[in-house]
Amino acid sequence: MKIGVLLSGCGVNDGSEIHETTLTLLHILKNGATPVCIAPNDMQMHTVDHLTGSEDTTNRNMMVEAARLARGDITPLSDISAQDLDALMVPGGFGAAKNLSNFAALEDKMSTTVRSDVASLIQGMHAAGKPMGFMCIAPASVAAPALFGKKIKLTIGSDEGTSGAITALGNIAVPSTVSEVVIDEAHNIASTPAYMLGENIADIELGIAKLTSWVCMAAHNVKAA
Amino acid sequence: MKIGVLLSGCGVNDGSEIHETTLTLLHILKNGATPVCIAPNDMQMHTVDHLTGSEDTTNRNMMVEAARLARGDITPLSDISAQDLDALMVPGGFGAAKNLSNFAALEDKMSTTVRSDVASLIQGMHAAGKPMGFMCIAPASVAAPALFGKKIKLTIGSDEGTSGAITALGNIAVPSTVSEVVIDEAHNIASTPAYMLGENIADIELGIAKLTSWVCMAAHNVKAA
Repeated sequence: MKIGVLLSGCGVNDGSEIHETTLTLLHILKNGATPVCIAPNDMQMHTVDHLTGSEDTTNRNMMVEAARLARGDITPLSDISAQDLDALMVPGGFGAAKNLSNFAALEDKMSTTVRSDVASLIQGMHAAGKPMGFMCIAPASVAAPALFGKKIKLTIGSDEGTSGAITALGNIAVPSTVSEVVIDEAHNIASTPAYMLGENIADIELGIAKLTSWVCMAAHNVKAA
Repeated sequence: MKIGVLLSGCGVNDGSEIHETTLTLLHILKNGATPVCIAPNDMQMHTVDHLTGSEDTTNRNMMVEAARLARGDITPLSDISAQDLDALMVPGGFGAAKNLSNFAALEDKMSTTVRSDVASLIQGMHAAGKPMGFMCIAPASVAAPALFGKKIKLTIGSDEGTSGAITALGNIAVPSTVSEVVIDEAHNIASTPAYMLGENIADIELGIAKLTSWVCMAAHNVKAA
């Protein structure tokens, strides 16, 4: 069973959150499935010095940086479609909100748009009834504006502004704790707050473990049906 | 209890291995201790494109890149001495052999030298009787040439060339599997092969979990003595 892991760089401030991604890969393997790391072959919105928080003068490529997380084993998003995967997971990190969509850059979150290649994959997965799991900021920035054409139940934890954006984008924001997963059974989509609420990597593990188990089990159910 | 985690960048080919480092941080917290991420504030030997394997024309700073793994919470090695820590762990990745020592760059491993600031910390920890844990290539590149003045039992798994270097550098190379930890009780030093043998992150977790538990327990014993 192939579980896509959609990445957007390598680092919390400008790419995919490293701990969230690593735990996702670990728990996919523990569920007996195979992770397929994917990233757009395109530049990040910007690159951030993670020591100072300041913006670098040179930028980096999402797929090249995500290859660090994947130990080189990464596939360009342009080479992947929904039929290649049994499920899709999207870790957080600001890359989800800066590179995969324009959520972070906008004052008015109602105007959020997702990269067209990312929207195509998510809509393709949804149309095929395949499960998806989103963590941290990814539910608001990537899932909520992905134009499912119906209200999806999503969580980013307890942050009111971000929950408001999920609602404004036509979905249902469900409050949760860091160890909980919010599951929209009808639409085969689940989410967990991870570092939207967690203080450290031990805090976020249980939610990511539950999310990954649910995604793998749901993918199994789709295959068995 | 403070467990130092000595980093050398962020990525298997030019810095600290991401999965090994993330699992180390996770298991330190699971053992009730606090990880203290540390890196030299200095340039890497070089920077490698993890997609193509080729060398980048611009280089990166070890501490700035390691800050990605530490979510910004990193201390310069120059600000740390053995008295600040209860134990020290060193993940692998080529950074351990390229940046913390010159092991990777040398034909003749007998000439291996460790950065003086790294050697000072390791020798200081050893002199204070505090435990240390090394994984992947770090036992050969950082621990073996660290001039303990005595033979230390270390493992890098089963690779004959690297085991030969450990022996040539005056230590004892003990073969092991990926899920095993080799412990030198007399010198309070342990090691595990991690990605020297592991195929994926699920393979390496047990060895790193065991190593981290041993380090934390040994640090507790030193404090209690």
